[in-house]
Amino acid sequence: MQHVETGGAAARVTRKPDELIVEEPLEIQLDGHLVTTTMRTPGDDFELAAGLCFTDGLLAGATVTGCRYCGECGSAVETEFNIVTVETGGCAPVPTPRVSTTMSSCGLCGSVSIDSLRQRLSPLRGLAPIPLDVLASAPSRTRQEQELFDATGGVHAAAAFTAAGETVVLREDIGRHNAVDKVVGRLLFDDRLPAHDLGLYVSGRASFEIVQKAWAAGFAALVAVSAPSSLAVETAHAAGLTLAGFARDGAMNLY
Amino acid sequence: MQHVETGGAAARVTRKPDELIVEEPLEIQLDGHLVTTTMRTPGDDFELAAGLCFTDGLLAGATVTGCRYCGECGSAVETEFNIVTVETGGCAPVPTPRVSTTMSSCGLCGSVSIDSLRQRLSPLRGLAPIPLDVLASAPSRTRQEQELFDATGGVHAAAAFTAAGETVVLREDIGRHNAVDKVVGRLLFDDRLPAHDLGLYVSGRASFEIVQKAWAAGFAALVAVSAPSSLAVETAHAAGLTLAGFARDGAMNLY
Repeated sequence: MQHVETGGAAARVTRKPDELIVEEPLEIQLDGHLVTTTMRTPGDDFELAAGLCFTDGLLAGATVTGCRYCGECGSAVETEFNIVTVETGGCAPVPTPRVSTTMSSCGLCGSVSIDSLRQRLSPLRGLAPIPLDVLASAPSRTRQEQELFDATGGVHAAAAFTAAGETVVLREDIGRHNAVDKVVGRLLFDDRLPAHDLGLYVSGRASFEIVQKAWAAGFAALVAVSAPSSLAVETAHAAGLTLAGFARDGAMNLY
Repeated sequence: MQHVETGGAAARVTRKPDELIVEEPLEIQLDGHLVTTTMRTPGDDFELAAGLCFTDGLLAGATVTGCRYCGECGSAVETEFNIVTVETGGCAPVPTPRVSTTMSSCGLCGSVSIDSLRQRLSPLRGLAPIPLDVLASAPSRTRQEQELFDATGGVHAAAAFTAAGETVVLREDIGRHNAVDKVVGRLLFDDRLPAHDLGLYVSGRASFEIVQKAWAAGFAALVAVSAPSSLAVETAHAAGLTLAGFARDGAMNLY
């Protein structure tokens, strides 16, 4: 990698080593049936696969009995570890491959999308209140623990944290959604869902899909470092989920 | 919206009006066949639909003869404008609905993904050189023209610019990919593809998919404000595309 500084009479160019964030495709299956393929940072693949099936509602209450890599025998190592199946012993319904990342079962306008979630998910009840200062400090607290970000300077993070401000699970990934699914997958494996006593922090924006995942996992609050969308705010209202955006330097916006 | 500041003995809460970035689903069809559904910021929908079909290689050389909204007669206004079809008079092949956003036709590991692009796209030739200072100043130049970002504080941007540093097309969208597709769609409608004399700026990271789109449109260079992934760097090498990351304050990294 070359570092270039312009502004003087001539550009100054220096050679530097660099660490790049790794991006590889992962095909996710449920009981051997294709669900989707996502571009992810390798690592915690079982959490990602199980978390995605959970937040998308594909498990429909079925218990995950195992996860395994299922690349073909004799295939290259990198391919072998780029296919994962989540196993429920056939208890989960056969999934329909997703035509898009976000709109698996949603309608064709925002309000229909929310209605579709309402059919699958109940409004959140019995949530533990999380103090405002714990919500507002989630970005700075999480930032200190982001090892991949320190190395590469460019990767998303998601973290589950308690009302006392303790980080329970932190995951980093090139994809925002993947980071959230990895956190939810970990909580699922640890039998900590629904996460009614936890907040969820995401390093990017709060879009519809992120709110959908937070709702499915039952988080008490969602904190984003950047802006929420209109549909994210409407969905959080429907869920009864506290939504904070622009969380920086101990301040934030509540929607 | 409530603005909350913590840090003192008690949190200070003030009510503020806010402008949220709009997010709505758009179903994209090609000659009436489903391609995908994407969550986008409404506006420039024809550019988005045509740009996506182009960068994904779905047109296969066919000419776009028109685009139209095709919600069902009598449906609600918001649904009516959330379905678009790109028309080629049947000259484009019938598309296969995409199982994921990124991996329409790609293999199951990064190198196979690049090989698959090589079969569809030739290495770029005859590119106009773009001066380093024009590349490094793309973020600050574009930032001044981001009207939606000014209003909402959270939206991605993509811009095509000349070697002289003139912005040709700028589009903002809640989705990084959508912003790029809108720019490419505009250039397609203006008969300015391949964009061998233009650079492409994106406000986020440079992932595999963004490099794929830049390659398909024939840009001379891609400038990202944040980090590229490992696969993005490899893909840019295969394309012969200049890739710059961490472009800030007149400095950048070249990969």
